[in-house]
Amino acid sequence: MRFERAAIVGVGLIGGSLALAARQAGLIGEVVGIGRSQQNLDVARARGLIDRAVADLADVGAVDLVVLAVPVRSTASVMRTLLPHVRPGTIVTDVGSVKGEVVAAMEALLPAGRPFVGAHPIAGSERAGAAEARADLFRGAPCILTPTSRTPRPALARVRALWEGVGARVDEMTPEAHDRALAFVSHLPHVVAYALVRGLGDPGLAALAGGSWRDATRVAESRAELWCDILLANADAVVAATESFAAEVERFRQAVVAGDAAALTALLEEATSARQRQSALAAVPRPAKAREP
Amino acid sequence: MRFERAAIVGVGLIGGSLALAARQAGLIGEVVGIGRSQQNLDVARARGLIDRAVADLADVGAVDLVVLAVPVRSTASVMRTLLPHVRPGTIVTDVGSVKGEVVAAMEALLPAGRPFVGAHPIAGSERAGAAEARADLFRGAPCILTPTSRTPRPALARVRALWEGVGARVDEMTPEAHDRALAFVSHLPHVVAYALVRGLGDPGLAALAGGSWRDATRVAESRAELWCDILLANADAVVAATESFAAEVERFRQAVVAGDAAALTALLEEATSARQRQSALAAVPRPAKAREP
Repeated sequence: MRFERAAIVGVGLIGGSLALAARQAGLIGEVVGIGRSQQNLDVARARGLIDRAVADLADVGAVDLVVLAVPVRSTASVMRTLLPHVRPGTIVTDVGSVKGEVVAAMEALLPAGRPFVGAHPIAGSERAGAAEARADLFRGAPCILTPTSRTPRPALARVRALWEGVGARVDEMTPEAHDRALAFVSHLPHVVAYALVRGLGDPGLAALAGGSWRDATRVAESRAELWCDILLANADAVVAATESFAAEVERFRQAVVAGDAAALTALLEEATSARQRQSALAAVPRPAKAREP
Repeated sequence: MRFERAAIVGVGLIGGSLALAARQAGLIGEVVGIGRSQQNLDVARARGLIDRAVADLADVGAVDLVVLAVPVRSTASVMRTLLPHVRPGTIVTDVGSVKGEVVAAMEALLPAGRPFVGAHPIAGSERAGAAEARADLFRGAPCILTPTSRTPRPALARVRALWEGVGARVDEMTPEAHDRALAFVSHLPHVVAYALVRGLGDPGLAALAGGSWRDATRVAESRAELWCDILLANADAVVAATESFAAEVERFRQAVVAGDAAALTALLEEATSARQRQSALAAVPRPAKAREP
């Protein structure tokens, strides 16, 4: 099941961590890194994430796996450029945070005999680049595969084995179900973080911030380029989640305006119970960074 | 500057941690713990947070410091009951997350010769009770004192020395400025956390949650009793902060609905820059729990 030679297009936090973890686990023999930034590729080489760096998609050479780890709306256009240089049968996969639009674009682009498996390891953070890559990034993290009727089962099995081999808890969902869920549990919290920091006005007030502010706004330092793509590629689900959230905020605002302690207590207690139910069903805690080899 | 004997009313996360830290630092000789829950007082005794527990405010005995660490809207009513049992000259302070309403109520209640110093150590979390108390909870954390023209300077100096002695970075503000700031950097992130978990619907979606969701919703497990009081006691500022935030969320929603990449990128990049400015001005990072003795 081992891939002899893989191309990772975009050697950032996710692509770089996958390269590192898969090589350490013996799941990929050799890794070719492809990216826009020579400086980032140099870091990836120096840290041993990749064996070789190429700046041009045309120079990818013979590979049996392509991992597209680029901003979601660039996925299909990068693949279009890469396609003439990759032999048929090569498994293509991605790591994008939105699946519906990406999977549809990839399947429209790729002819028969060009297997594609949509994948989303849920392990990103506000950190970016090869310098942040960690071999244990995916350990215990969910990774969602989104096969369709066009996905060849052998390719699906090999991509599943890759993610399980780096420690992820792999699940399968339709692209649409994935996108509706992620709109709530990832895309919306990002919008919230960005809106919180924008609303603060005086940055000096941050000197009084405790843990609640720090944690709620952490991901507002995520890269704008990535998040513009994610929010627009999943627009319908993001808008629905945002409206559901805004309606809940409005319920709190109204209870506070009315000074209605009974209504406010009910809102708070229902939320606390919901959080406890959600925590019980949530992903297992990730290992501490200290456990990284 | 040492207090010989202090009464801590409410031996929870904050009251219990102050008792533990101040005794370890030799800032308080003996601590009497007062609370509603005998079970919690037993934990506080067993953990060495307090020397003695009393269930009835009338049994407080001779103390030279009273720390009120109760839900903010109970502060003045607890003090009213305690007042006949505390000798004049005893310094009274609190730890409440709202200062305007609390300070006004305390100053209306306390006659001359009864010094009161409003204080707010910004170190709470979703954890509660004596079992969660930590001697290092306040190390590096902001603690805001909110003296007024009625606050005796010697009492202010002694309360400042107490908080500095347990490692807090002490600042002084008016109650009103404190409340406006905390509405943004603490009360609003709590409303956001509660609204996020309420909006999720299917709790099973939490299985797909990554760090952004986990961090943004952590404080939704805070005690409803405390947060009902905080939100209502600081209603005007909380409503203003919530409306400012909701307007920012709406800007994101509109940009996504319009599919306007340029507008969305501008919103995201301004937010990222704002977060970086805010981080630079934020409280110094807290020491890891591992450093606790």
